[in-house]
Amino acid sequence: MPAPETIIRLEPGAVVLLDQTLLPAQAVERRCGDVETLIAAIRALAVRGAPLLGVAGAMGVALAAARAEEGDGWRARVEADAARIAAARPTAVNLAVGVAAGLAAADGRWDDPSAVRDATAERARAFHAEEVERCRLIGAHGAALFGPGARICTICNAGALATGGYGTALGVVRRLHEDGAAPFVWVPETRPLLQGARLTAYELGQAGVDHRVLPDGALAGLFREGLVDGVVVGADRIAANGDTANKVGTYGLAVLAHHHGVPFHVAAPRTTIDPGMPDGAAIPIEERPREEVAGPAPGTVPATSPVRNPAFDVTPAALIDAIIVEDGVLRAPFAFGA
Amino acid sequence: MPAPETIIRLEPGAVVLLDQTLLPAQAVERRCGDVETLIAAIRALAVRGAPLLGVAGAMGVALAAARAEEGDGWRARVEADAARIAAARPTAVNLAVGVAAGLAAADGRWDDPSAVRDATAERARAFHAEEVERCRLIGAHGAALFGPGARICTICNAGALATGGYGTALGVVRRLHEDGAAPFVWVPETRPLLQGARLTAYELGQAGVDHRVLPDGALAGLFREGLVDGVVVGADRIAANGDTANKVGTYGLAVLAHHHGVPFHVAAPRTTIDPGMPDGAAIPIEERPREEVAGPAPGTVPATSPVRNPAFDVTPAALIDAIIVEDGVLRAPFAFGA
Repeated sequence: MPAPETIIRLEPGAVVLLDQTLLPAQAVERRCGDVETLIAAIRALAVRGAPLLGVAGAMGVALAAARAEEGDGWRARVEADAARIAAARPTAVNLAVGVAAGLAAADGRWDDPSAVRDATAERARAFHAEEVERCRLIGAHGAALFGPGARICTICNAGALATGGYGTALGVVRRLHEDGAAPFVWVPETRPLLQGARLTAYELGQAGVDHRVLPDGALAGLFREGLVDGVVVGADRIAANGDTANKVGTYGLAVLAHHHGVPFHVAAPRTTIDPGMPDGAAIPIEERPREEVAGPAPGTVPATSPVRNPAFDVTPAALIDAIIVEDGVLRAPFAFGA
Repeated sequence: MPAPETIIRLEPGAVVLLDQTLLPAQAVERRCGDVETLIAAIRALAVRGAPLLGVAGAMGVALAAARAEEGDGWRARVEADAARIAAARPTAVNLAVGVAAGLAAADGRWDDPSAVRDATAERARAFHAEEVERCRLIGAHGAALFGPGARICTICNAGALATGGYGTALGVVRRLHEDGAAPFVWVPETRPLLQGARLTAYELGQAGVDHRVLPDGALAGLFREGLVDGVVVGADRIAANGDTANKVGTYGLAVLAHHHGVPFHVAAPRTTIDPGMPDGAAIPIEERPREEVAGPAPGTVPATSPVRNPAFDVTPAALIDAIIVEDGVLRAPFAFGA
């Protein structure tokens, strides 16, 4: 498992992160010495995964405080930077939650930039440590849902890389592995950015967990052949009623699980829950660039053919058997209202 | 629409085919001057699509007859070549059907190689023309199932390129377009070989049919948003009870259609029906090479991660609303027994 500080860390005047777009071929650190560079890294998915985006958001506030020019309007400049970081990607609520946590640390200290810098940096590092700890608890709760040798299907990457350490869906797998329960994981490649093939396979390989990569379209056949005992996925935002936005393809996986009577679980820290969002219909779904699907010109898609590339979809609560959070396993009906 | 003779044609001593692995970037003809080269083209999917494989099989027999050394054992050499062509890929029954049609033309003529060459060549060209005509009839029958402006989802490529002209699933779309019914087509890219993104988008663009390409994992969201009026797919083999093998991902699409109450149709000539196969459980499913998913080394999948890459899956008859063949629209219960 990549150590938390190798995935993301706050240094004086910089957020340093593992560039996840280059894995598994290369493990390269990307140094974000200003807010613009961090925002670009978030948009490019060099840093991605809802819980990790929360950590990046908290660290981003510390970075903004470290870099903003002092003097008149200093607070406004830091807050404006924080707002731009929070808006860098729309679907994961964690990004805004992490930014809000960072800003909260500055409360009552705005007259003293130095105190704000110290407090936001401390809060960001603590937020990171807490998120990893939440994942460990999620892993422990989730592992109790599976027996020895369970064949678990996931999607995309909800592992250490997505969370800053340990993982949510893969935290469950990791705990089963630590307990000697010998889990097996089906890893859909997860087009268009192949974060299953690239990142989940990489993490599982490093951890020594048995797994197999397959095209997204081959998932259905697994269920038909009875090769899946349960599904565990991460989440980018969970609405008050339990509707869950996650990587595109998750909803199809939930329909398959339902059709075949296989349990479907969501694993996520409570930082992923948005009690202000009554249901999934209002969750903003990010549309990503055409080039992610078509590739660089001439590409695989004819130049005249339009492309649809939503990064996420919404799984209705009715298809979710359990939501695994840091304080336990929740069952329907879900009610996360404020 | 690519003209039938540009997709595949029999020349003296060669089968000339459009290399479908290079589309849409390049339209290059591949000349197969011997049986080995033809088999390699079939395995590499330079020529693919169940009905077109049938045409290639019939032309392959003519090629074998043209190329086999005369003298003692001539017939055995031609028959051995024919058997190897029929076995080049396992799932589509059409390949064997086309080879059998070619061999049948040689019946009673084996004492006269020249007569066999003429008869098999004539049969192969007629088989091609008949297959295109069957597609036109399928298109006409299938078009009656859809109203104006229908939003149709397909998978992979079941168009002119897959059939030697006009298409089966895309034949239905083509006929709607010719009738002025303004169909719209959702085109899943169809990993790993992207035959939807590359071939179906290419054909629809050339025909001027409105369409949009999307990752396979984004299909489910379309159904949830009510953006699909019906599904039409091709087939590689239809068992006696209607169970249908088709490109991997078809079964998942059928489950989605069923879950959302959207009609799911299979369009295929009767040459795709295998009355000797009682149900889908016995249909052989081709496992394709790892590199199609992982790419060339280092690739996107870690070298130590195993890959599953089935080219097809089986959709049970219970999820199929209609099978559209050249003589009409068939409804459950299907019974194609010999």
